[in-house]
Amino acid sequence: MGAKSATQELIGAIAFDGDGLVPAIAQQHDTGEVLMMAWMNRAAVEETVATGRVCYFSRTRQALWRKGERSGQAQRLVELRIDCDGDTLLLRVDQTGAACHTGQRSCFFRALADGRLVTLSAPLVDPETLYGAEG
Amino acid sequence: MGAKSATQELIGAIAFDGDGLVPAIAQQHDTGEVLMMAWMNRAAVEETVATGRVCYFSRTRQALWRKGERSGQAQRLVELRIDCDGDTLLLRVDQTGAACHTGQRSCFFRALADGRLVTLSAPLVDPETLYGAEG
Repeated sequence: MGAKSATQELIGAIAFDGDGLVPAIAQQHDTGEVLMMAWMNRAAVEETVATGRVCYFSRTRQALWRKGERSGQAQRLVELRIDCDGDTLLLRVDQTGAACHTGQRSCFFRALADGRLVTLSAPLVDPETLYGAEG
Repeated sequence: MGAKSATQELIGAIAFDGDGLVPAIAQQHDTGEVLMMAWMNRAAVEETVATGRVCYFSRTRQALWRKGERSGQAQRLVELRIDCDGDTLLLRVDQTGAACHTGQRSCFFRALADGRLVTLSAPLVDPETLYGAEG
């Protein structure tokens, strides 16, 4: 089966929601760190598989969001997994720099601990050096 | 700050969607394996934090879903993280047995590889021994 029909097999297995979207979890492939969760539409899935560079769908901008296009903090796709009922994707990626628009490596940098929400890490980079807004 | 007010600080930081839900990713705390993604409402978050046992909200049944209540395949909460914009939770858990209703350890047991969707692992347990349906 060629790459194109494999992508169509994948698309057919995805249970897109009423807005045509599916949540996608990005995980650093070698360390296992969960980096972020964002959304994809069919075109974002197709582009990601075709290029090997992760592309999401921005619900805010209602447009394809090529991760790192502005910030340089791109995600190379290592493996794309799909869950049992097809309604969530797991992207095993190689993240360049910071996944989070705050400059943090992971978007999940706050935890409930010691009776409050604590910040677990420091930004890798100053977000001002990356861009003004979403990356 | 006490545990109760910490939970309220957390609840205030969560951006629940229009249905009052937030996606929650469950990750095995020591291996980093991503096990599943499900949804929580406010009551599910409060119960999970209060009991240390993960409780989701089943969109199918429109009811609290105490993970493992029928199957025994429960999740003990190790750490609860929240992302930068508060619209996704990351639950670092200790999973008993299989997270997936198919008997697989993780719901993400299929990947795009070698030009098709491949199954990466075998079930840990026969789902028939767990229950008839959702776990």
